[in-house]
Amino acid sequence: MELNAIKKLMEKFANRKEQLYKQKEEGKKVFGMFCAFVPIELILAADAIPVGLCGGKNDTVPIAEEDLPRNLCPLIKSSYGFKKAKSCPYFEAADVVIGETTCDGKKKMFELLERMVKMHVMQLPYMKTEKAKELWVEEVKKLKEMIEKETGNKIDEEKLKESVEKVNKMRKLFYKLYELRANKPTPIKGIDALKLFQFAYLLDIDDTIEILEELVKELEEKVKKGEGYEGKRILVSGCPMVAGNTKIVELIEEVGGVVVGEESCTGTRFFENLVEEPTIEGIAERYLKIPCACMFHNDERIENIKRLVKELNADGVVYYTLQYCHTFNVEGARVEEELKKEGIPVIRIETDYSESDKEQLKTRLEAFIEMI
Amino acid sequence: MELNAIKKLMEKFANRKEQLYKQKEEGKKVFGMFCAFVPIELILAADAIPVGLCGGKNDTVPIAEEDLPRNLCPLIKSSYGFKKAKSCPYFEAADVVIGETTCDGKKKMFELLERMVKMHVMQLPYMKTEKAKELWVEEVKKLKEMIEKETGNKIDEEKLKESVEKVNKMRKLFYKLYELRANKPTPIKGIDALKLFQFAYLLDIDDTIEILEELVKELEEKVKKGEGYEGKRILVSGCPMVAGNTKIVELIEEVGGVVVGEESCTGTRFFENLVEEPTIEGIAERYLKIPCACMFHNDERIENIKRLVKELNADGVVYYTLQYCHTFNVEGARVEEELKKEGIPVIRIETDYSESDKEQLKTRLEAFIEMI
Ligand code: SF4
Ligand code: SF4
Ligand code: SF4
Ligand code: SF4
Repeated sequence: MELNAIKKLMEKFANRKEQLYKQKEEGKKVFGMFCAFVPIELILAADAIPVGLCGGKNDTVPIAEEDLPRNLCPLIKSSYGFKKAKSCPYFEAADVVIGETTCDGKKKMFELLERMVKMHVMQLPYMKTEKAKELWVEEVKKLKEMIEKETGNKIDEEKLKESVEKVNKMRKLFYKLYELRANKPTPIKGIDALKLFQFAYLLDIDDTIEILEELVKELEEKVKKGEGYEGKRILVSGCPMVAGNTKIVELIEEVGGVVVGEESCTGTRFFENLVEEPTIEGIAERYLKIPCACMFHNDERIENIKRLVKELNADGVVYYTLQYCHTFNVEGARVEEELKKEGIPVIRIETDYSESDKEQLKTRLEAFIEMI
Repeated sequence: MELNAIKKLMEKFANRKEQLYKQKEEGKKVFGMFCAFVPIELILAADAIPVGLCGGKNDTVPIAEEDLPRNLCPLIKSSYGFKKAKSCPYFEAADVVIGETTCDGKKKMFELLERMVKMHVMQLPYMKTEKAKELWVEEVKKLKEMIEKETGNKIDEEKLKESVEKVNKMRKLFYKLYELRANKPTPIKGIDALKLFQFAYLLDIDDTIEILEELVKELEEKVKKGEGYEGKRILVSGCPMVAGNTKIVELIEEVGGVVVGEESCTGTRFFENLVEEPTIEGIAERYLKIPCACMFHNDERIENIKRLVKELNADGVVYYTLQYCHTFNVEGARVEEELKKEGIPVIRIETDYSESDKEQLKTRLEAFIEMI
């Protein structure tokens, strides 16, 4: 039953470090990032490499807690810890790390991180007023200038057009993947789809596209044959589940659910909305549409979740919050309410990267899956 | 030893509710607010009344936790709870509540709060780039328009000039108070000074000015006579300590310390920096200088703390964080480091509004005071 494309994904990932360091040796610059708001088109247009640095492992949390509060989101601590321990090859490869003022914890963590690595922090507005849009365009422009300076490569119209097309191509393939997952039975396990999103932040984009193309073909075959996974169909919605962190999807699929979609930055927030115009303004516009909970009046996100439930034929929603992530946690109250109004079953889970709550979560998820 | 001005403060405060509702009956509009970033000059210029609505009591936390996560800053929960329980006369008096996108928790809480009360939320930038300044000027303008619409009163040049002068007058009196507190012995207990700041968010500004004028005179007399309080001189720095919350100052003064200053929104962040020009731009400029931990690269704050320690002849700093306040908590690491570099003793305290940690805090503070 194993998919060739997923086998290839695992192989590519296993080789990625070597490949990345080779690319670096050949003179390519590496830009680290922590957020779906960072326009990778600009990095690619300068013939440089974007890599996601969000930490998904508990191992580096203790060393981070030497500097950071214990009651901070595990993603923030894990990421910081990786740099402090120098134990992430991607982090070590990064020439510059691009941060953003999205959530309080990350924003302030960057002030400590920039002692260990060269940083460029983008200011993100929280509303979508005209002035806010102008400010964001300016920030995208400044990012472009920084990348040009750092790489020594000019990002001209032609280059930008190429990279916009490439990233859009990847996005369209992810859209296609979602369409295929909407089938009953669904042709791919949630855990495989999740790994694809996680590694898409790390792999060379050409490899990701190649894998996606193969995957789409394979899944189309499976759908034609009616092959796939049965079970209660779950949309996971909430905080990112970055490489190293697969806990919640694994648990859902252990207790008889099958994850058919992720309203997440390792999911829809990564690929939804294309860049319409290959310009700074066009790029800024696409990214400002990301319905992250850091936005004030993030109603688009609630509408999105409802739409995704329908499109993906989901039976229920697991609302996933990383501990101490205030924005997604507080927004969860409204999401829960709105879903209940529509009769969509929802369970709210708040967890960290440790194993200590696994049994308890399993019991709760089991009961939820049985109930729906 | 009791100060007449403080007696008057308590009296005025005891009568404030009645007075406020009388002013309301006379047709004055009441604008609630949760932050030192809200330019009260605009409210006063429209002949309306600003009142601070930040909650400082534990009583309303449980009702707030019906909607909000437990691991959220107590100030946010207490404030929300007051509205939900309808138990704060100031909150109930407010015609419009002015929010701001300062910290994650408050920003997202406002999305729930606005179901219970009419709100206007200001977007605050986190950096001080040119575009950020433009955005903030725009937000101040929009606030002005909202206030004009709500009150039916035009805020003209003359009115604005008057209100700017009045608020500046209050600020200068607070500066004077700080100068007087710098004396050894210090002529006023920290707990009395704190109440003054707390009630300044609630009282009629004319009353606050009257009290301050009397207080300054009294303290000048005391200083001349060499009267006042001895003990280890403490600067409290960090999260606001709003009405209802006096725990940390009380504890410090119980164990032999005397609080000589507050680097806080109930302290210096309330009064430092005058409005230089009585215009929208001048107002915007003054407020954007507030060194709140929500700012990225908030180095001014660290410089401020060091300066205050010197000016106030403080022996040590109690760095005060409300539980789950990420911005002040993470910034605390840098503040601690910088103070230690200068040989200034510092202790970091994280607490909530409950009484449960009082004994433990007392022990820690006692040891700190003995040590310095
Ligand atoms: S959840 Fe928000 S802050 Fe986190 S990576 Fe996604 S867009 Fe960025
Ligand atoms: S999960 Fe939440 S708290 Fe953690 S980095 Fe993302 S937005 Fe910030
Ligand atoms: S600490 Fe910051 S967010 Fe809180 S009241 Fe003060 S300025 Fe506003
Ligand atoms: S104390 Fe911190 S978390 Fe609480 S409202 Fe103020 S800035 Fe926000």
